[in-house]
Amino acid sequence: MKHLINHIVIVGGRAAGPAAAAKARRENPGAKITMIEAGRYISTGTCEIPYLISGEVSSPGDLVFFTADDFKRHYDVDVLTDTSVTGIAPRQRLLQIESNGTKYEMGYDRLVLTTGAKSKIHPQFPPELKNVHYVKNIEDAEVLLGSEHLTGKSWLVVGASYAGLEFAESLAKKGKDVILIDKDELPGSGFDAEIRQLINEVLVKNGIEFVGKTPELKVFTDSGKVRKIKFDGRLKEIDGVIGSIGIEPETSLAKKAGLELGAKGGIKVDNRMRTSDQYIFAAGDCVELKDTVTGRHVYLPQAVVARDGGYVAGANAAGGNDFMYPVLRNTALRVFDRFATKTGKCAKTLDELRIPYKIVTATADALVHVMPGTHKVFGKLIIGNDGKILGAGFFGGPEVSGYCDIIALAIKAGLKATDLRHGHYNYTPTLSPFKNLIESLAIKAAGKSR
Amino acid sequence: MKHLINHIVIVGGRAAGPAAAAKARRENPGAKITMIEAGRYISTGTCEIPYLISGEVSSPGDLVFFTADDFKRHYDVDVLTDTSVTGIAPRQRLLQIESNGTKYEMGYDRLVLTTGAKSKIHPQFPPELKNVHYVKNIEDAEVLLGSEHLTGKSWLVVGASYAGLEFAESLAKKGKDVILIDKDELPGSGFDAEIRQLINEVLVKNGIEFVGKTPELKVFTDSGKVRKIKFDGRLKEIDGVIGSIGIEPETSLAKKAGLELGAKGGIKVDNRMRTSDQYIFAAGDCVELKDTVTGRHVYLPQAVVARDGGYVAGANAAGGNDFMYPVLRNTALRVFDRFATKTGKCAKTLDELRIPYKIVTATADALVHVMPGTHKVFGKLIIGNDGKILGAGFFGGPEVSGYCDIIALAIKAGLKATDLRHGHYNYTPTLSPFKNLIESLAIKAAGKSR
Repeated sequence: MKHLINHIVIVGGRAAGPAAAAKARRENPGAKITMIEAGRYISTGTCEIPYLISGEVSSPGDLVFFTADDFKRHYDVDVLTDTSVTGIAPRQRLLQIESNGTKYEMGYDRLVLTTGAKSKIHPQFPPELKNVHYVKNIEDAEVLLGSEHLTGKSWLVVGASYAGLEFAESLAKKGKDVILIDKDELPGSGFDAEIRQLINEVLVKNGIEFVGKTPELKVFTDSGKVRKIKFDGRLKEIDGVIGSIGIEPETSLAKKAGLELGAKGGIKVDNRMRTSDQYIFAAGDCVELKDTVTGRHVYLPQAVVARDGGYVAGANAAGGNDFMYPVLRNTALRVFDRFATKTGKCAKTLDELRIPYKIVTATADALVHVMPGTHKVFGKLIIGNDGKILGAGFFGGPEVSGYCDIIALAIKAGLKATDLRHGHYNYTPTLSPFKNLIESLAIKAAGKSR
Repeated sequence: MKHLINHIVIVGGRAAGPAAAAKARRENPGAKITMIEAGRYISTGTCEIPYLISGEVSSPGDLVFFTADDFKRHYDVDVLTDTSVTGIAPRQRLLQIESNGTKYEMGYDRLVLTTGAKSKIHPQFPPELKNVHYVKNIEDAEVLLGSEHLTGKSWLVVGASYAGLEFAESLAKKGKDVILIDKDELPGSGFDAEIRQLINEVLVKNGIEFVGKTPELKVFTDSGKVRKIKFDGRLKEIDGVIGSIGIEPETSLAKKAGLELGAKGGIKVDNRMRTSDQYIFAAGDCVELKDTVTGRHVYLPQAVVARDGGYVAGANAAGGNDFMYPVLRNTALRVFDRFATKTGKCAKTLDELRIPYKIVTATADALVHVMPGTHKVFGKLIIGNDGKILGAGFFGGPEVSGYCDIIALAIKAGLKATDLRHGHYNYTPTLSPFKNLIESLAIKAAGKSR
């Protein structure tokens, strides 16, 4: 079949796109491969963008891993940047393309859509306001970093989930006064309630004002800029705003092409990353994928998932036969010197799905108490009726990375909470505690099930 | 049966002993329980002792977790310190005891031996020399810390495995000039060859002189002290010596009682921690235990294993029915700002047991390369012919604690190396890399097995 695939086109060049292109090239050395990107850059980092403000990452260029020329040289893939795909004619297998005012058509044998996601827009903070920034990609970051109001002292971050918290921290580290607002009562949407409380404590300690449940927020604009906000009777001057209330799959092209979407709004794909059109594949932040724990489709816009989905889509578009694994959320967030993690399912989702569960929580030492640098780590384990682990959340120092990865692997392997007991966790005074948090949670889980 | 157990005696009060006593009390609230300790202290930390020299742990008292009085109050266990058990008459169930020159006998219904381990002695550095220290317990540490030659600048550490490396580091941090010698060519006995090389590089960088393979070492003593050593034609003045060439099970009492010992020299126990005498149990650094990977008995003197074995021995001595899990080595070592780990079996042991295996190695980033504070992490995975993980070693920053715990759990769960792929490891710029070392090793393992 590979010899019938003469031209593979990939629409979107950020995370899933380059992965798909690279894999397609490996799978099919003879095909022509074209990657089309609407923006200026391909192969970029996204998760690192907040740290451009704090200076932990020095320049946006550091987050561009391949230039178009390098990518062409390395993978023999034609790369078109600043080029938009405006329509798809699936029957004719034709793309409508626009670049620098010129419109043209391009045929394909197989198409891979890696169109990513776009920022949700808060109605009171439209991006048309000059000092309101939705910073989703490198180009957005360049605009923010080049804007003169970045010198202003007073910043508002709208939305206190992952990126919002990261931007708030970065602005604070840069010496800004930061107000962080969210529709929820606590920051850290997506994390467990106990962890959201702990996140809030860290924010307070570090001088970030969190304002939850802001129904009566008033925004005063002047000359196309946000100047002041008013809430709880308080009036605050504002120099700049970062909007960060979430992202949603960018599916306008898929919709136009008549591709099926899923319940979560992402493009529907099978486990080969094939859409409802047999010649079109999709991957990255524009698709929905099957969840490991529930077997249902979820929207999980994560860089690693985008990369791996891109690999599968690219391989299969090129005539291969690769499978995508069911996904599992396993995310972490730094809040100043602490880290919060979220793995698998949370109670809220399980309630919605009417999946029964029990919860155990524990607090443990990061190191034995006599060692310098120790601190407390909080953990929460969510366990199904059959004893299997459904999810977990941790809050502590960098050791939580290992803890949440242990849980992720345990969920993938179908282990029970009690299987985590006597896990042979290392004990080293300078590195790890005598009884770690996973062991403590497993002991509690065993006690409850007896 | 419990009502027939009126007196439980535990010989040894450091790690396994207090665990056994506490568990015996919980299992059998009515019995009289006596814990006998030859030294001054009970319930002490051992792994932390090297950090008394560097000052990371401020005083030996910090490593005494319970006084005899506190233990009595808390667990209703009679504690005899500075009291030696000099013999056992198993048929009569009698102990010969000596304390302050007084000899007497004590009956028991059940006995738990938690006699621990003792330092191996290097023939050229006998502990009779006043400035030669074998620092195995708190009392040894007190002697060292109180000794006037600790003010001397030039120190020799004999033996470069775990404790030797820790003592060398601690002395160096205290401003001493340290020579570290070992019979092997590289420091870090027990670690994989690649990791031993990396340990050596860190020692060199931090000004510790490692001298391997020292066959013609000459030791010059004067007035009962080591004054100089000579090797490779070089003469070095020495103010103090720490001997650290390993430990061995303390079984003299068990031998006198006629208890069976295993091939590794430890007391033989079944999975209920019962010795060859039905009324005598044993736990801690004096026993051998069954290994998870090979099913054979190993000597694994580790604090966590001592604690858990103590729990089982104590529960069963008190009339309960608890099981000890097969053990798995999972150890780590700090070498200045780096950490080395060792999990499961190493190639050398597998060769000796004629168990076939293959090895994959990889080097990965601790964080994505644009983030500050990243570094390289080395990993090695040892895989059986059936694809199952047999062992692993890591060398890097504190993230190796999570990595080695993941491997330990994977070995316990009987996972294959390829099961570690798509493990849903978290990716967070400030915490964890885009592709972590475990994933890299799993990809290599998959490639090799295809």
